[in-house]
Amino acid sequence: MRMLTEQHIDDLALGAAVLGTGGGGDPYIGRLLAIEAIRKFGPVKLLTLDEIGDDELVVPAAMMGAPTVMVEKIPNGREIVAAFKALAGYLGQPIAAVMSIEAGGLNSIMPISVAAEMGLPLIDCDGMGRAFPEIQMVTHTIFGVSATPMTMADEKGNTVLINTIDNHWTERFSRSITVDMGGSALIALYAATGKQLKELAVRGTMTYAEEIGKTVRLARQQEANPVEAVRRITGGFQAFKGKVVDLQRRTVGGFARGEAHLDGLDEYNGSKMIIHFQNEHLVAMRDEKYVVTVPDLITVLDVDTGEPITTEGLRYGFRIVVIGIPCDSRWRTQKGLELVGPRYFGYDVDYIPVEQRLG
Amino acid sequence: MRMLTEQHIDDLALGAAVLGTGGGGDPYIGRLLAIEAIRKFGPVKLLTLDEIGDDELVVPAAMMGAPTVMVEKIPNGREIVAAFKALAGYLGQPIAAVMSIEAGGLNSIMPISVAAEMGLPLIDCDGMGRAFPEIQMVTHTIFGVSATPMTMADEKGNTVLINTIDNHWTERFSRSITVDMGGSALIALYAATGKQLKELAVRGTMTYAEEIGKTVRLARQQEANPVEAVRRITGGFQAFKGKVVDLQRRTVGGFARGEAHLDGLDEYNGSKMIIHFQNEHLVAMRDEKYVVTVPDLITVLDVDTGEPITTEGLRYGFRIVVIGIPCDSRWRTQKGLELVGPRYFGYDVDYIPVEQRLG
Repeated sequence: MRMLTEQHIDDLALGAAVLGTGGGGDPYIGRLLAIEAIRKFGPVKLLTLDEIGDDELVVPAAMMGAPTVMVEKIPNGREIVAAFKALAGYLGQPIAAVMSIEAGGLNSIMPISVAAEMGLPLIDCDGMGRAFPEIQMVTHTIFGVSATPMTMADEKGNTVLINTIDNHWTERFSRSITVDMGGSALIALYAATGKQLKELAVRGTMTYAEEIGKTVRLARQQEANPVEAVRRITGGFQAFKGKVVDLQRRTVGGFARGEAHLDGLDEYNGSKMIIHFQNEHLVAMRDEKYVVTVPDLITVLDVDTGEPITTEGLRYGFRIVVIGIPCDSRWRTQKGLELVGPRYFGYDVDYIPVEQRLG
Repeated sequence: MRMLTEQHIDDLALGAAVLGTGGGGDPYIGRLLAIEAIRKFGPVKLLTLDEIGDDELVVPAAMMGAPTVMVEKIPNGREIVAAFKALAGYLGQPIAAVMSIEAGGLNSIMPISVAAEMGLPLIDCDGMGRAFPEIQMVTHTIFGVSATPMTMADEKGNTVLINTIDNHWTERFSRSITVDMGGSALIALYAATGKQLKELAVRGTMTYAEEIGKTVRLARQQEANPVEAVRRITGGFQAFKGKVVDLQRRTVGGFARGEAHLDGLDEYNGSKMIIHFQNEHLVAMRDEKYVVTVPDLITVLDVDTGEPITTEGLRYGFRIVVIGIPCDSRWRTQKGLELVGPRYFGYDVDYIPVEQRLG
């Protein structure tokens, strides 16, 4: 057990955005919400998975929707608590702790503000070890845990409770409601016991994100190379260095979809890269060959500062480094690849681990 | 109080379809469900509004969606009970009775099967005195009663519970979920007390529908004119007699939208009529002039049998009589016309009561 204070938030938000692989929401908004909540309600207890009882109930809280919308429709912090309380009321049994459903600038941090306000501890884990765009794409699904009951809330005061026969139906219903709620919604779902999470959750995600953030911060202070620092601490592989020369982005069906075209710099001079994304980066092709695909992480960093750049933050002219990072091993199983492999997203390519493609 | 038995269902379904003004679902399916439920669980008590206590809770149950889908995706009777029970569980207070939210071949009859299975009485009233396509279009809305909590269920076992800040949001969310559920859904909503209903509900709708049906049946038996019998008992006005020469119908956004073109017969020889519909008939234009508009009822009857024809049942070549029937007076108030007047549906015409247009 340790306490998360205001001082931890900056490192955590930055590192979580690295793991967010372009998605998971804007770290700046997450920071504001968490710092406000900690100032008002005090620091948050961070527990390891082993510190919660097998029968205790843990509930993730998150923001759902297109990141392009999220940055324009900033949550006020009340909706997420409304979603969380609605689920608590429906479950009719006490919730012992909060967790992050995914790693990402916003979705790793928002649960801290929920934990602060609800007076609950946060568990040092998540359900992906990265961010993914769709509701069913969590290790909970691999291990048969239902996404529902799921609650959704918007800033106007509307709430929706969903109960489905499987997690794909949850995605379908909740995506429609997210669009109706204006493109983003606050959600609580995937209630699971300590026992279930000890088996299925990705451990230590919060601490890991904080370490990544701290590494970048120190590299900047020591005038070392922050991009190289990220690559080293994540065990990642450099896939490209280039300049954004074209960017297609559309917010459709509740997702931010599009692609970024890069012209190579330095050792990649003359090469080209295309990154396809759906909220998160999905596949990166260098000179028309796949070099990184889901479920491995495709992280885009500013070439000078090492700052992770989200899909909605990417702009023409940005000079970036693209890093491929090995995903959690559960995503590399047959069940994992059925859920989040490149073919699920419509790419005609088999998954090959990034360390085999680039190592 | 009187008992509704199998013998009442045929008349009731036919008469309710007359009031359904082209929508409200197929009477044949409603008949099957109600008869099956009555055979299994026994006859249903029909109470007048004055026979329920002021504090007792009454909940409507209905099918939502495009009638074109409903006829292909026949409810099994379990989903509607699932929706009803989900709402009962959420309300946390006993439901004293069931009611129909609208008059219509299916939606007047389905609550009978719910009442039979739940062992509850049915109240002799509804929330429209006809059928309308959208959730907020009930007298409950005029009187400030919330549509939510609302529950939805499909045949697969999915359920959704909605809580919104107003009834237009309820329509928006539930329409999306209806589309996701395959174009139709079973719903329970608009829980209201006896006291509220005594003020807001349209009284005696079930008995009225049964009388209309009986009148048509007797006219057929006595070789009288069943169309004329309908006109007389409803206080309606003949707007057209013609043959369907063109029919445009599309199922879009969870609605069956379209228009029917008619060429005049007999005294209407040389005239033309166009009827626009969105699940229900909305406006009828004769020779490019509006002759009946919402909220007045536009009822389409087979010229020989007086059988009411739903928007999804209409076919090329059908010979029909179009009757305009005055709506409940609450729809003619300013609040009523804001909800369901012709301008709400996008028609550039003021509402003029049918008796002034055709009387």
